[in-house]
Amino acid sequence: MPADRPELAAKAVAAQPDLVILDLEDAIPLAGKAGARAALETAVAGVGGAMPVFVRVNPVSSGLFADDLAAVPGDAAGLVVPKFDATSQLESLSRATSLPVIAGIETVRGVADARDLLAPPVVGCYFGAEDYVADLGGVRTDANGEVAVARALVAMAARLAGIPALDMVTIDLHDDHRFSTEAHDARALGYAGKLCIHPRQVSLANTAFLPSDAEVAWATRLLAAFDDARGATIAFEGQMVDEVVAARARAILRVAPAS
Amino acid sequence: MPADRPELAAKAVAAQPDLVILDLEDAIPLAGKAGARAALETAVAGVGGAMPVFVRVNPVSSGLFADDLAAVPGDAAGLVVPKFDATSQLESLSRATSLPVIAGIETVRGVADARDLLAPPVVGCYFGAEDYVADLGGVRTDANGEVAVARALVAMAARLAGIPALDMVTIDLHDDHRFSTEAHDARALGYAGKLCIHPRQVSLANTAFLPSDAEVAWATRLLAAFDDARGATIAFEGQMVDEVVAARARAILRVAPAS
Amino acid sequence: MPADRPELAAKAVAAQPDLVILDLEDAIPLAGKAGARAALETAVAGVGGAMPVFVRVNPVSSGLFADDLAAVPGDAAGLVVPKFDATSQLESLSRATSLPVIAGIETVRGVADARDLLAPPVVGCYFGAEDYVADLGGVRTDANGEVAVARALVAMAARLAGIPALDMVTIDLHDDHRFSTEAHDARALGYAGKLCIHPRQVSLANTAFLPSDAEVAWATRLLAAFDDARGATIAFEGQMVDEVVAARARAILRVAPAS
Repeated sequence: MPADRPELAAKAVAAQPDLVILDLEDAIPLAGKAGARAALETAVAGVGGAMPVFVRVNPVSSGLFADDLAAVPGDAAGLVVPKFDATSQLESLSRATSLPVIAGIETVRGVADARDLLAPPVVGCYFGAEDYVADLGGVRTDANGEVAVARALVAMAARLAGIPALDMVTIDLHDDHRFSTEAHDARALGYAGKLCIHPRQVSLANTAFLPSDAEVAWATRLLAAFDDARGATIAFEGQMVDEVVAARARAILRVAPAS
Repeated sequence: MPADRPELAAKAVAAQPDLVILDLEDAIPLAGKAGARAALETAVAGVGGAMPVFVRVNPVSSGLFADDLAAVPGDAAGLVVPKFDATSQLESLSRATSLPVIAGIETVRGVADARDLLAPPVVGCYFGAEDYVADLGGVRTDANGEVAVARALVAMAARLAGIPALDMVTIDLHDDHRFSTEAHDARALGYAGKLCIHPRQVSLANTAFLPSDAEVAWATRLLAAFDDARGATIAFEGQMVDEVVAARARAILRVAPAS
Repeated sequence: MPADRPELAAKAVAAQPDLVILDLEDAIPLAGKAGARAALETAVAGVGGAMPVFVRVNPVSSGLFADDLAAVPGDAAGLVVPKFDATSQLESLSRATSLPVIAGIETVRGVADARDLLAPPVVGCYFGAEDYVADLGGVRTDANGEVAVARALVAMAARLAGIPALDMVTIDLHDDHRFSTEAHDARALGYAGKLCIHPRQVSLANTAFLPSDAEVAWATRLLAAFDDARGATIAFEGQMVDEVVAARARAILRVAPAS
């Protein structure tokens, strides 16, 4: 949510996201940065501890970073640092703050160097498709073909760093189908969640990133059969099942919502 | 155009490409190389300064390179160097010529090392799908799936080098739909243009790589609304618009053809 | 085939694969490893020299590797080493065995570092989609979108190493369409073959990785026309044909089955 709209905090909380991000960057025009910084305390108070609050500051090299950082309330849980694309910024961050950082990988350089960039104090990252394509000089399309490789590379880099990756925003506010399709694709690619820009998107994300009832039922049946066979390779519902497939089934049950 | 067919220069010029490339490489069989070199002056004269003329020489390591280079007319604007895939070739080129170079990235090694290869005197590059797939030992298909990753990586490397990338040729001479679809995809991926092998393809490329009327109209409406909101995040025609999306709209108007 | 099922060797041989792999890893539960090792000799004898036999051992770092290696029969042709993802394992292998190795690239680290990993004694590799996606924390889907980038990168790395790459298994035992579609896609991407987990898949693979009759006929016609033109660029059946396209046609005839 834009940091200058603290009255939106109640709606954000009601949507039950895993965390709330107060944006000082792209959502706030230059003339509004000071006002948005001044509103951070009220916005954090509006969330009221219901979930962690992160503040998206302007990029480290933007000239706005120091003032942004000084304005971050003491009860903020962390920073989101956009357009993160130089390892020198890791040192700048470590010197400037002890807060955990979610890094925005959203430039061509950021994607190309993601493996080196995702290191402490970075504890998570997101892929920013709109900024990435603007930097690339490309065109955003509904089919997302222009971000397919970059989006996969960011998820791979996050896995190598052992941190969660969050999928790109869907700027179409009312296109639930697009949001859910992208969320499903993102989960398949290894993303742990998806950035939301509207409360209605949060429940779509929460649904998409948890195993479906059908997946849970499949995993339960499969593991029963695999245990019966004492771990020997079996044919199960037309598929060969060995330890690898069983491991995937166990992973589904591990994160499945309690029924 | 094949360098041994200088009579085609008039047709090439009439099609109004951004530049003309006279090919000494794959278009010319070994027995014809000497004749094609001898025809370069006539071909350049045929273009008559209407647009820059580049000469595609044979690869640096081909054994034909020195003779090709010696034959390049003084009024050629630059070289196209195919199968460019070793950084040592950068030094060879710098020693051998002061002409700007468009590098052909069209081997697996070239794609994998593109980030290091795209350095001065290279001022542009193209992705060569036919050669790439031949080197890969794969199969060219209509769907282009076999080149999807390589094609994206080349555009990313060009962006990191700050130079334009040109998309692969479409060897289907009469399949305008394929050419235009590929050109649109290429523009989305960040390509600045597309190699043409027939005059009829040039206008298709010129159309595809400029914003459409619909894009220009969208960008104009969007920026009016965004300016009205003084840069605050707005909902515009169902999409969230912030500084990033506005920047994309400005980029469209910057390159739009004058109406 | 699971190494503890030597009675399956006759079926495997009858399917006429290029080689047989006896699996000690995912197909065999921990309690069965010793029994499967003891059955290796019988299984190799069952193949009876009809084609080379490789033994898939457990990963180098699994704690099972040494015992697996000690059990490999003297007439085994080589090892398959799964979850291969550290260059230190190259030295471990060189010290431990003089057998050629097919490396399983099936972790995120393995894919990211494939170019360094594919070195002697590795003489081939396979891409393991099930393990890769499990390691990635993603979801396996019918459309294979979640493995598209990794699968392409492995084929590229294999080409740079000058070794053949084998495509992922298809665990759907009765879905011939999926198997064949994947095999065709894999061939386009530069894969030389595909792992099979059921005898019925072998003939599908053998068909998919050889040029079709239509490809052979096209290549024959094209080369006749190109030779008539003495290597000059020609328009052939609506396509521009130059040396690159002719080289692809020659490659098709080189591997085509004798008619």
